Formats: sequence, C-alpha cells, structure tokens
Amino acid sequence: MHILVTNDDGVTAPGILSIAQEMRSFGQVSILAPDHNWSGGGHVKTIDRPLRVRQVNLADGSTAFASDGAPSDCVALALLGYFPDKIDLVVSGINPMANLGHDVTYSGTVTAAMEAVIWGVPGIAVSLDSTHNHLDPIDYSPAAKIARQIVENLSKTQFPAGILLNINVPTIPIRGIRFTRQGLRMYRDRLDHRIDPRGKPYYWIGGDAPTGLPEEGTDVGALAEGFVSITPLQLDLTAYPAIQAFKKLSWESPIQEGSPTSPRINGRK
Amino acid sequence: MHILVTNDDGVTAPGILSIAQEMRSFGQVSILAPDHNWSGGGHVKTIDRPLRVRQVNLADGSTAFASDGAPSDCVALALLGYFPDKIDLVVSGINPMANLGHDVTYSGTVTAAMEAVIWGVPGIAVSLDSTHNHLDPIDYSPAAKIARQIVENLSKTQFPAGILLNINVPTIPIRGIRFTRQGLRMYRDRLDHRIDPRGKPYYWIGGDAPTGLPEEGTDVGALAEGFVSITPLQLDLTAYPAIQAFKKLSWESPIQEGSPTSPRINGRK
Repeated sequence: MHILVTNDDGVTAPGILSIAQEMRSFGQVSILAPDHNWSGGGHVKTIDRPLRVRQVNLADGSTAFASDGAPSDCVALALLGYFPDKIDLVVSGINPMANLGHDVTYSGTVTAAMEAVIWGVPGIAVSLDSTHNHLDPIDYSPAAKIARQIVENLSKTQFPAGILLNINVPTIPIRGIRFTRQGLRMYRDRLDHRIDPRGKPYYWIGGDAPTGLPEEGTDVGALAEGFVSITPLQLDLTAYPAIQAFKKLSWESPIQEGSPTSPRINGRK
Repeated sequence: MHILVTNDDGVTAPGILSIAQEMRSFGQVSILAPDHNWSGGGHVKTIDRPLRVRQVNLADGSTAFASDGAPSDCVALALLGYFPDKIDLVVSGINPMANLGHDVTYSGTVTAAMEAVIWGVPGIAVSLDSTHNHLDPIDYSPAAKIARQIVENLSKTQFPAGILLNINVPTIPIRGIRFTRQGLRMYRDRLDHRIDPRGKPYYWIGGDAPTGLPEEGTDVGALAEGFVSITPLQLDLTAYPAIQAFKKLSWESPIQEGSPTSPRINGRK
C-alpha cells in the first residue's frame, strides 16, 4: 500500500509526522504538504499560478515535500503524477482542532481528503479535539494510533466509492469509535474593527471559538462523550427534499416571452 | 429588501455589475467583493490576518466595496456588521463559467452563498455557461434577468432554511428552468511540469477543461438541453447509507486494551 500523507498546518507541524510514522506499518508513505499553515483555507484548485515543490527533512530525519499550494493542491499534485508510484490512500492530518459540522467545507484537512475522492482514491481526514492552549505541546500519538487502527480495518473491507471519512478523536480517555452524521457547529464570530497606526481601519473575523450541538448520533455528540467520530461524507450536496418542494411551485414552465433578454418577470419587466 | 451582491472574479468584473443592476429593482443593494480574482479558491474563513475594505466606483458610477479577503470572507464581513442594515439575501455572481457537479466546493461563487446560509441568510449563486474565449466581452444581461426572475419568485415563497441555490444559466436561447440535482463533473487535469529560466522545476495544474455527464435530472443535463438549472444545495455532507454499511462491520466496539495510547490494532500493536 502506498499512502500519501498531507495536512493543512504545514509540513513541519508535529501532527503530520505522528500520523506518517504510524502509516509506515502499511508500506510506502509519501509526504507532500503545504509549506505554511492553510487552516480555514477551503477546497482550493490553484489554476492562476504554477506550484513549487521542495524537499525537506522532518524532525525524525525522514524526507518530505513542501508545496506553496493548498492542501487540496498537494493532493492533486501527488495524484496527477508528482510521485511516480500509484497512491492507494490519502491520509490528511492530524489537525490540532476538531473539524465538525459546518467546518468540513472550510477545513484544509477535510478538503484534502475530498480532493482524493474526486480523483478516485479513498481519503481520510484526522483531527484531534485538543484543548489547544498554544503553549504545551500536543500529544498526537493516541490519535495517530486510532488512525492506524481505522486504516487497518479499512484495508480488510471494500472502501465505498465516492466517500471520504472525517475522523475526529477526543482527548484521552478514548471510550471507543462511533459512526456519526455531521452535526451542527455554532460559530460565534464577531467583526473586530480596529484602526492601524496610520489611522486606517482593518477588520478581524474574531469572536469566541465555535461550540457544537452535542446531539445523539452526531460527530459533536460522539466527541462530547469521549468517542472517536467517523463521519462518512459525500460530495453530492443536493438537498433532494427541496427539489420536490420547489417543483410544486411551478417555476419550471418554459420562459414565455420569446426573447431570452426579456424573460417573464411576473409582469414586472 | 436589502441584498448583498458579491462574486469571486473581483469587484470590477462585469458580471457583478450586471446582476447588481437587476437586483436594485428589489430595494437596497450593497456590493462587497474581493479586490482580485479568487476563482477556485474554495470556502475560506480568513483568521490568520485581518481584512481590509476599500470603497471603489464601478463602471456605472455606483459605489461598491472591495476586500482583500475571499468571497466567503466578504459575506462574513457583510453579515457580521460591516453594513449597518440587516441583509435579507446574498447573491453571488455572475461567474463567467458554469459551476456544476464537484465544482461546488471549489467555487468561490458557490461558497459565498454557502457562507450566507451558515449565517442564516438565504444565498444564491449565479453562473453563466459561457464559451469564454478570453477575447469577446460576455453578455451577462440574460443571466442577470433570469436571476431577477428567480429572486422575484423567491420573494413570494418561504425560502427553505439551510439551503442555497446553485443557478447555472446556458447561453441563449434559454428554453426554461429546471430544478436539478448536482451532476457529475469529469476533470481532465494534468500535471504540466516545466523548468524556469533558472533551471528550477515548477508545476501547473493544467490539462483540458472539465466535461460533464449530461444525465437527466442533473445540472449538467439541464444546461446541455438549454435549460437554466437550479440545484438546491445543503451543507450536510453526511453519506447516510455509508453509516449503515459501516455499522455492520462492527468496528464500533469499545477500545479494549485500556490505555488510550495502545488501542486495539487487531493484534498488530
């Protein structure tokens, strides 16, 4: 098995080394990750500039590659042929903060796994629900071992096509694993309006850290009870019930007034 | 009605002016958009730097605001209070290229509408399926009028909570409107490896433009037949059938071997 390991915190972040070391028990591991922090950077396809890749050595002396692209760009680079050997699995993480609820479309960790699925390769994203105080080092090894257990289990089954796994690991003690649905994140962002030393305004998207609604069956709920959450995610965002509701409104009638530059605006034209 | 208009091509792009002019028939329009092209830039929340906003005049002399943030940052700025008046609807576009299938998580146009929904405001994304040759100017007015017709219709109904509308408009002649599901995009990206004048490698994510599978009922299929596609999208990406399939695999048993630093790795530990 050839595993690509990436992240959104940058190739030198400790979480990526911890999970790469565990993944080595399955065979070949290649590491290609951003050269700086891309947290909250979304699902990016960089098409307006070329990407650079440089070789770096990680803290254990192993070789890795750093790109000036986003996490999803790193996955595209790898799967489109930067590494000559075929890649069987993309593992993204370990992120130091949980990626729950609406976080999934913002998260570089999760969108890297999305990119894998778009190219037909299974992808898993791993995040630790650490109480990150920016001072003490985070111990990623329990989460890395959980990821190894999950990959071991995955290797014995047929990974469903078109699905990525969004894995969130609580801080110890870990009580077990639950398959969950995406829960509800409640953002508490506030606009923080400041004036720079030259008298000009600038704006931080600030406020308090998000909370979550710990409902039964959700990622938020599982973590709150000390369980690892595994949420299978798909890339079809269609709100199917809404299609039926809208169809009843009869907006679908052909545009009546001939010319496409003057469609029927319900008499308002 | 107070409508925020944004886009991902930058505040000076012609598509945003065309749709803003149509939206003025509903009341107050505020324009806040990126100061440069963010296409393919994903769903971004900029938290590692503050954002700037400056006032600009558009080609018709109207006032707009340009930010150095992503499209979704522009929506967050606006909904978190940059504009004192409450915003009732976010309209994003008009993008010069269609946003279909897997494009939706990459697209700055669509992710701006996602951001609106996260903050509890209805969001619509409007894209034109132009055959953009980068030479001739694009006529956005048919798509802008379609958007006005859709907003007019929306204003007479209860906009479903938690849903954004991803609207794609074909080039003329327009045959009508269809409510669709997200179709399948087929990307044909290739890695284009080049050497710079100083002998160092760089990589373009290149290749041919994506195609789509024009299945009945999908956005791709509707456009191919000359219909406007309206795809309602939700932010719950859970692959519900996969949860049931995974649950049968019995991975959910509590982690047995006590210490969270040595979980059960199926005997491999």
